[in-house]
Amino acid sequence: MTVFPDLSKLVQPRNLVVVGGSQKPNSEGARLLNNLAASNLGGEVFVVNPKMTGEEKQRCWPSVSSIPPVAIDVALVLVRAALVPGILRECANRNIPFAIVMSSGFDEAGPEGQALGAEIRALCATAGLRVYGPNCPGLTNIRDRVGMTFSPAYKTDIHCGRVGLVTQGGGAGRNVLQGLAFGAVGVGLWLSGGNEIDLGSAEFIAHMANDPDIDVITVVLEGIKHGKRLAAALELARERGKPVVILKVGRSEYGAKAAASHTGSIAGAAHVNRAVFRQFGAIEVDDIDELVAVTRLIASPARPTSSAVAVITFSGGAGAMAADHTGLQGLQLANLAPDTVSRLRACLPHFASTSNPVDVTADALKNPDSTSACLRAIADDPGVGAIVIPIPADYAAITDSLSQVVADVALEIAKPILPVWMSRRLGPGFELMEQRGLGPFTSLSSALSALRKAVGSGDPVAASVEREGATDPSQDCAADRLFASGEAAAKQMLSRAGIPVPEGILAKTPEEAADAAEKLGFPVVMKVASEQILHKTEVNGVRLSILSTQQATSTFRDIVGTVGILRPEARIDGVLVEKMFDERGREMLVGIHTDEVFGRVITVGLGGIFVELLKDVSHRMLPISEGDAKQMLGELRHAAWLNEFRNRPAADIEALEALLVRISSFAMEHTEIEEAEFNPVWVGPKGEGAYALDALILSTTPPTFSQ
Amino acid sequence: MTVFPDLSKLVQPRNLVVVGGSQKPNSEGARLLNNLAASNLGGEVFVVNPKMTGEEKQRCWPSVSSIPPVAIDVALVLVRAALVPGILRECANRNIPFAIVMSSGFDEAGPEGQALGAEIRALCATAGLRVYGPNCPGLTNIRDRVGMTFSPAYKTDIHCGRVGLVTQGGGAGRNVLQGLAFGAVGVGLWLSGGNEIDLGSAEFIAHMANDPDIDVITVVLEGIKHGKRLAAALELARERGKPVVILKVGRSEYGAKAAASHTGSIAGAAHVNRAVFRQFGAIEVDDIDELVAVTRLIASPARPTSSAVAVITFSGGAGAMAADHTGLQGLQLANLAPDTVSRLRACLPHFASTSNPVDVTADALKNPDSTSACLRAIADDPGVGAIVIPIPADYAAITDSLSQVVADVALEIAKPILPVWMSRRLGPGFELMEQRGLGPFTSLSSALSALRKAVGSGDPVAASVEREGATDPSQDCAADRLFASGEAAAKQMLSRAGIPVPEGILAKTPEEAADAAEKLGFPVVMKVASEQILHKTEVNGVRLSILSTQQATSTFRDIVGTVGILRPEARIDGVLVEKMFDERGREMLVGIHTDEVFGRVITVGLGGIFVELLKDVSHRMLPISEGDAKQMLGELRHAAWLNEFRNRPAADIEALEALLVRISSFAMEHTEIEEAEFNPVWVGPKGEGAYALDALILSTTPPTFSQ
Repeated sequence: MTVFPDLSKLVQPRNLVVVGGSQKPNSEGARLLNNLAASNLGGEVFVVNPKMTGEEKQRCWPSVSSIPPVAIDVALVLVRAALVPGILRECANRNIPFAIVMSSGFDEAGPEGQALGAEIRALCATAGLRVYGPNCPGLTNIRDRVGMTFSPAYKTDIHCGRVGLVTQGGGAGRNVLQGLAFGAVGVGLWLSGGNEIDLGSAEFIAHMANDPDIDVITVVLEGIKHGKRLAAALELARERGKPVVILKVGRSEYGAKAAASHTGSIAGAAHVNRAVFRQFGAIEVDDIDELVAVTRLIASPARPTSSAVAVITFSGGAGAMAADHTGLQGLQLANLAPDTVSRLRACLPHFASTSNPVDVTADALKNPDSTSACLRAIADDPGVGAIVIPIPADYAAITDSLSQVVADVALEIAKPILPVWMSRRLGPGFELMEQRGLGPFTSLSSALSALRKAVGSGDPVAASVEREGATDPSQDCAADRLFASGEAAAKQMLSRAGIPVPEGILAKTPEEAADAAEKLGFPVVMKVASEQILHKTEVNGVRLSILSTQQATSTFRDIVGTVGILRPEARIDGVLVEKMFDERGREMLVGIHTDEVFGRVITVGLGGIFVELLKDVSHRMLPISEGDAKQMLGELRHAAWLNEFRNRPAADIEALEALLVRISSFAMEHTEIEEAEFNPVWVGPKGEGAYALDALILSTTPPTFSQ
Repeated sequence: MTVFPDLSKLVQPRNLVVVGGSQKPNSEGARLLNNLAASNLGGEVFVVNPKMTGEEKQRCWPSVSSIPPVAIDVALVLVRAALVPGILRECANRNIPFAIVMSSGFDEAGPEGQALGAEIRALCATAGLRVYGPNCPGLTNIRDRVGMTFSPAYKTDIHCGRVGLVTQGGGAGRNVLQGLAFGAVGVGLWLSGGNEIDLGSAEFIAHMANDPDIDVITVVLEGIKHGKRLAAALELARERGKPVVILKVGRSEYGAKAAASHTGSIAGAAHVNRAVFRQFGAIEVDDIDELVAVTRLIASPARPTSSAVAVITFSGGAGAMAADHTGLQGLQLANLAPDTVSRLRACLPHFASTSNPVDVTADALKNPDSTSACLRAIADDPGVGAIVIPIPADYAAITDSLSQVVADVALEIAKPILPVWMSRRLGPGFELMEQRGLGPFTSLSSALSALRKAVGSGDPVAASVEREGATDPSQDCAADRLFASGEAAAKQMLSRAGIPVPEGILAKTPEEAADAAEKLGFPVVMKVASEQILHKTEVNGVRLSILSTQQATSTFRDIVGTVGILRPEARIDGVLVEKMFDERGREMLVGIHTDEVFGRVITVGLGGIFVELLKDVSHRMLPISEGDAKQMLGELRHAAWLNEFRNRPAADIEALEALLVRISSFAMEHTEIEEAEFNPVWVGPKGEGAYALDALILSTTPPTFSQ
């Protein structure tokens, strides 16, 4: 179990010290003091600034150590980078538990800045001080009205709600605050750790997971500093039942590079990040407008839990488009109950369409009571999960009145309503719905995509597994060389760990090979055995479909002869004779590698000729549960490959899942394993099991455990 | 060549007759008369309405035939459906060339309506009258200020430009008009044919292709009435150099059903529609907001032609996100020239980022001259194709001033500028850019996606092929039964048409089979030959890898014996012995089928085990050019399968392209072919050709031509 620090005093401090508060009009320092003056603090603000003059002087102290001996919770630091380490040392000496460093000029600013960063890290490690920042806009506790930030917008964006917001840079956070500025949904707490030199997203998410006044956690990540801690925080949020919505920047190479230079952190491999988010039940979104939209849907009193959509509109064309996007997103159009249809008929003209998509026609809009009755009838239908209202254009009074009805009804029903204002003319109707917190979408595709993701947040999650405390890969593996275990040794280890491998006999002579083949039963496979040869096919060291004793004898000679010529330096231990698995099975691959962010990751994918062509793989951080294994296989784009296919019977999926879990446990027992490849893994027809037909393991220590 | 009607008099009429003009306040008839009163008509409006009273009466006539004998160009009909056929007959008798029928209650309204529709169609076919509608909002000629529509918004949405707009329903058209309401881009002509009972999208697109005052054609299609005419119109637009942007509703099953019930037309198969749009160079978009955005980009004076993006921002985080989406869309981040970087350095603070994404920092924004200079420097860089400006949040005066600078500079530079207002707080800065016609995007993903599609409109297009005049599939193939040609007959036809098939010998006895195999050289393939057996593998009638004379003899007996038991009724003509093609080749499939909208379509895809697993195919309407064949292969998701792969040499792609073109020509010569399957097609290593290893042809007439 990973233990996260208690951040209560950081988030809701009593006494504060500000180092770098300034009088210069409109400077960051002045704005910080101004925001603090507008805050509800339980204690006092001490300003350290030897240069202050005039009236302000009476409230200033020349240094942190000169402040009267009261308990101070947080130091706010906004001076140039070079001075920061010294000031933090003073804070540590004064037993101040937290510092928020807003200054920039550290890891994002070349070797000099990186040296200053290292100094701060060392201080945190030894002196017990916890640092938030640097290179950040500060901390905004909207719920308690504490603005420890220099942002001039602090006093504007204070629409409070139960969303916890975690960002690294300031712009993204401000965007979300402005996006959740009306109605029932708003941000209660915004933590934005910039370079995350010490405290970071993981600690912030964990804090919010434990915070009883936060329901949904919304995260923008540019880089990931501590992958395992982040994973642990996501797992904690899942345990606490708090949905986490994440926008991860850096999914393309350009984005990764730009994000790294912005906050000086590692973007990570997009496919691994995505897999880990799924593993821990977080919802990944594609853009910041989608982050806002999905957050709003999930944090709304009427959170979408079913993907059955009812479309209601006054334009047949718009209804058809909404139906189209419903299908394109893989959602369902609800079948309206007969009772619902009767209620609709009662309040609509005869030429209106009372099946889904419901077209009330423009005529009916002239009567708001009838529109309202229709909406209520649809909302009452137990088969309807969400109501989508496409509005193709601004029709002045007509759409104004519709918006009014929608906003009124939305307050009274328990189902989510998604109005879609499709026109760029954002008339009064749009504005009304925005003000009432309905967050009208501006495109159908974004509405239905957000709905799909929001509904997905209610998906059943894979069961958790026992985890170690989160340390990070940089600490795990400092090895600068790796030791390889070839096929024979690796299979021996696997076999001991209960992982099925083919029955095999190591033959030292042609005669032994023939005996082994007879004993195993034809056809057999024969492979060169040598610790020095890791890629056996490259030296023609693997022969399939050996059908007779005679062929076994000659194949032994041929393998030893060929390999001897191609790799004269290699010590040949013999030839491994194995039972051959037949073509009714599927070839899969399983691997383990070490991700620079999340540590060791297990991969499963389609093997054989599909490997390079399809690149169809899925990943999970180690260790995995049975549920994880099941989800991994389900995520494969061509998961159908394992089902009954042409004349082949369905594959033994349960055996493959069990194999994945065993390989995960095996790797957890052998922390020295850095990389492994089991390719191919043969998955037989149902009931016939899954076997690792080949294996290669790279470890940080010599493979003594295989003896 | 398809000949399209001249619609000049429809679009810009002199004298008009209105049947159904009404005095009832706010009725559709009254609004129509009101819009006509506000129009610039060259002639007179005659109103037919026996019921009109009072002042209006003097301008009314009791019937179309009672109107004075002047030349009338267009009749506008807005009476209940049942009366429409009679009125149209009167119009035809009066030699009125065009009628616009706005009334609904036809094909979209059950059997009664469909009967009325049929009556109108018959009249059009015999009397020379051309009908626009029914079930439509009318025709809006914005450029010449002629509003033949009952829409109350006619007088509002008249921002004129050089875009031609074609829709079926009214809502979608209104949406586009409202979306293109500012700046240099606007709609000149909006044609919206509703049910398209006679004139339709094809005629409208063709008219706009020939209209010197239209530059870009923007289309919303719910259904496609006349596929081949539509294709001919798209081809005409391409010849005239007019980009066509299309939103096709009905890409999912729900959408197809809803669209069909809205306008009573066929949605068509989404994958075929998409292929035909590509074939004729039209740009397909995914949503109506994207339709507006892509149209604006293409119709702008600074149309994007290069995918090299420069990002300029004042927020590092927003810059990273924009870079990310640039990469995700497959676009490039431009490398800024050294001169550009020097110019940026000269006007930015030292801590600003002068590489792409350029971060001018919030400080620089305080000086509009410096922002303006930066924008100009980037615009002058020859390596920059488009400038994306992400604005993460509304920062009041800061973003207002930025918007002003962007709008001013945009007027003076020749490169497209894409501002992205990422926040939901659509402050004055957003409004300013909107009013100035910059069409600020509201999400990064939509901005970069629209840019990608707009740039794609400049892609080189496949060369055209000689086409027949466009008739439609319903007319082509009235056959109610099809005749099958089995492998032997089909291969004979192919061979005559110059399409490579394997060398083969039909053996009637085991001895002939052995001789044939020896003559062809081992290994050979043997297949049962029988016109009654179309699916040979199902009766175990195909044997591969026959290696010896002895095996050939026994295989002959075995095939004839097995098939005789499984299909005793089938007449067996013998066994086809063919040279076997080796495993260095790729298995592909080629097919022809008849699409209900576009007629015969050719398909190519990955064959063998990939068929069901990957469903990786691409399509084109017949006939195809060499360029089409090349594009088809390029569109395959796994096109890399044909490249050098593992130990296999690259495939003979040229031979496969040639095979596709020959099959297309073959089908064009044999119009009786309704369906054909060539599976597998073996594509050998470069220089070794492509061969149809199996063939099955279904025709509307018996295969006499194969004799």
